[in-house]
Amino acid sequence: MLPFIRSDLAQLTAYKPHPSSNSTEPLAIQFDRLDTNESSYDLPPEIKEQLAWTFQQIIESNRYPDGEHETLKEAIAQYVNESARYSSCAVTTANISVGNGSDELIRSLLIATCLGGEGSVLVANPTFSMYAILAQTLGIPVVSVGRDESNFEIDLKAAQSALEETQNPPIRVVFVVHPNSPTANCLTAAELTWLKSLPEEILVVIDEAYFEFSQTTLVGELAQHPNWVVLRTFSKAFRLAAMRVGYCVGHPDAISILEKVRLPYNVPRFSITAALIALQNHQLLLSSIPETLSERSQLIAALSPHPALEIRASDTNFIYLRLKPNALQSTEVALKSLNQTLKSEGTLIRLLPGGLRITIGTPTENTRTLKRLQIALENLEY
Amino acid sequence: MLPFIRSDLAQLTAYKPHPSSNSTEPLAIQFDRLDTNESSYDLPPEIKEQLAWTFQQIIESNRYPDGEHETLKEAIAQYVNESARYSSCAVTTANISVGNGSDELIRSLLIATCLGGEGSVLVANPTFSMYAILAQTLGIPVVSVGRDESNFEIDLKAAQSALEETQNPPIRVVFVVHPNSPTANCLTAAELTWLKSLPEEILVVIDEAYFEFSQTTLVGELAQHPNWVVLRTFSKAFRLAAMRVGYCVGHPDAISILEKVRLPYNVPRFSITAALIALQNHQLLLSSIPETLSERSQLIAALSPHPALEIRASDTNFIYLRLKPNALQSTEVALKSLNQTLKSEGTLIRLLPGGLRITIGTPTENTRTLKRLQIALENLEY
Repeated sequence: MLPFIRSDLAQLTAYKPHPSSNSTEPLAIQFDRLDTNESSYDLPPEIKEQLAWTFQQIIESNRYPDGEHETLKEAIAQYVNESARYSSCAVTTANISVGNGSDELIRSLLIATCLGGEGSVLVANPTFSMYAILAQTLGIPVVSVGRDESNFEIDLKAAQSALEETQNPPIRVVFVVHPNSPTANCLTAAELTWLKSLPEEILVVIDEAYFEFSQTTLVGELAQHPNWVVLRTFSKAFRLAAMRVGYCVGHPDAISILEKVRLPYNVPRFSITAALIALQNHQLLLSSIPETLSERSQLIAALSPHPALEIRASDTNFIYLRLKPNALQSTEVALKSLNQTLKSEGTLIRLLPGGLRITIGTPTENTRTLKRLQIALENLEY
Repeated sequence: MLPFIRSDLAQLTAYKPHPSSNSTEPLAIQFDRLDTNESSYDLPPEIKEQLAWTFQQIIESNRYPDGEHETLKEAIAQYVNESARYSSCAVTTANISVGNGSDELIRSLLIATCLGGEGSVLVANPTFSMYAILAQTLGIPVVSVGRDESNFEIDLKAAQSALEETQNPPIRVVFVVHPNSPTANCLTAAELTWLKSLPEEILVVIDEAYFEFSQTTLVGELAQHPNWVVLRTFSKAFRLAAMRVGYCVGHPDAISILEKVRLPYNVPRFSITAALIALQNHQLLLSSIPETLSERSQLIAALSPHPALEIRASDTNFIYLRLKPNALQSTEVALKSLNQTLKSEGTLIRLLPGGLRITIGTPTENTRTLKRLQIALENLEY
């Protein structure tokens, strides 16, 4: 190890992007890529044409991008207000910060709150791994609690104890996903009550990456809770994973700190333009969602009767499969084997310590995957 | 201030992007934008067409980008080796990390070395402001020394004393720009000797953002100095400021730490593609450099005789003007007035505490700016 590197970084392993995203070669297309919760649909050709035209005619490649994102923030504010139609919500550009993906916003939130030994973070596993990974790269302690085995609710008793007992540094940020990945469930009433009970010196980050699939949002609560922020992304339903654009909605004071902490030109001009054009065409882009939800129902209905599987309702564009305990083989080994078989047959899914996460793809992809999974399950010594 | 925000962030002010980059409206074109050291030339239409075609036909907007940047790293390694033709240099992809602009790499280097009270950083002012700004957002102490008033050499005696005397935490990183911004000079022999004398527990960051203009590089020294890294960018000579791509060349162990620390999908797919196509066409894109250098000579020749001005040679695509001390007005007020007059006439330049930095633009822009500057100087009560 080089002597100028922080000693605590040595044992960290890098986050390995998944194979489907790894290749720039067309051969990746041979796989059904159901492992990263992307949309299976590219932008429609007319939108790509509009973006290509804008790049050629309007965008000056040689000039730094708009560092303030004002136009994009206006469009985001309008979309957030429209999409929160069942709650009183009137966010403005002062409530919004735009990031190089939600990842950059998560990092900025961690930098703004916990650095310098000022705070630890709390997560409930299983959940999106990036909160803990980014905290660790910054030397921020991560406290983990579990979830209820049946409905995936956060172990609130353990969470409350962790809050009360964690010292040096105390917990300063709680991360939740709404709905959660990989378990696919929205926050429960008990979880919401607990989040509302948290004192104002604890930041609550509500990641709504899958909002467009769940149609359930907490942005209407932000006005009552200056210590809550909501994260959203263009990488899922908006089909812009390649462009890396996420946003944070929150109290203007929290937003102004995020604006201070972020890199001055954090989002490339082409990505800003893509997000803007996606919002202008959001009805078209989001029109594939009913198909996704219907495919999800069919997949769950087809898999639920299987005696080895445990599968619950999903509020997102993926499903989470677990295996019932079995005397012949450990569930961990069996999950690994299922994942490997699917991969060798051509479907990439996500293997997690407790289960398998499968993104809902196109009808053809889902049909293929279902067939492959059913055969793999039959061949399982389980 | 919200109670979950780090107390030391309150007094920080956000980096304000400069007005020229601020607007997404075509009216920005009314200004000669000579304030951010960009190239004044957009990509040629055939390159933009190739990129637009690649976006429409090859890039899947809905898929996460290549998180490993392997193809781009190969192209960068080849370019670095070719461009270091006078020194023995054989870098491979293991020596390269790609960032969302150099800014992200600077932040990653700071995170990897100084967080958690492990280090302070040393800069010699005036220099690129982002080193200190990013350090401050991370709560990392910044030690500043000055430069020689005549040749802009770092005050090496002060730098050495700072190294020896700074404790809790000690200096862990030294940032230099080669050539420096805003003073436009390459590292001197004395500075190089001092950098070579630094112990291996101090990281030396050599920012070669303007390499394509100076044609002087230290990448050939990296093999002998595992504690040195070189930063480069596509934002200047390669005309890709809008795309946000920078890279770091260094020891494989340092690079692997940068890869651990960075965001997994830190560069959008379109930006990766743009950098790749720019490298494939580097002879075409860099063919405008002789014009820039000749324009620079003419501008310096035209301005040097002026009795109020101090101007030195430049190794970059900008010049740095200072005012000789004068009894009638403070130089600071006079510089501000010159900057304001130029702006009102239509040229944006960069006002700095000790001088004015003017990017070399197109011949037309330079002619206009020279005329405006000469008139402004005549009208100065100085």
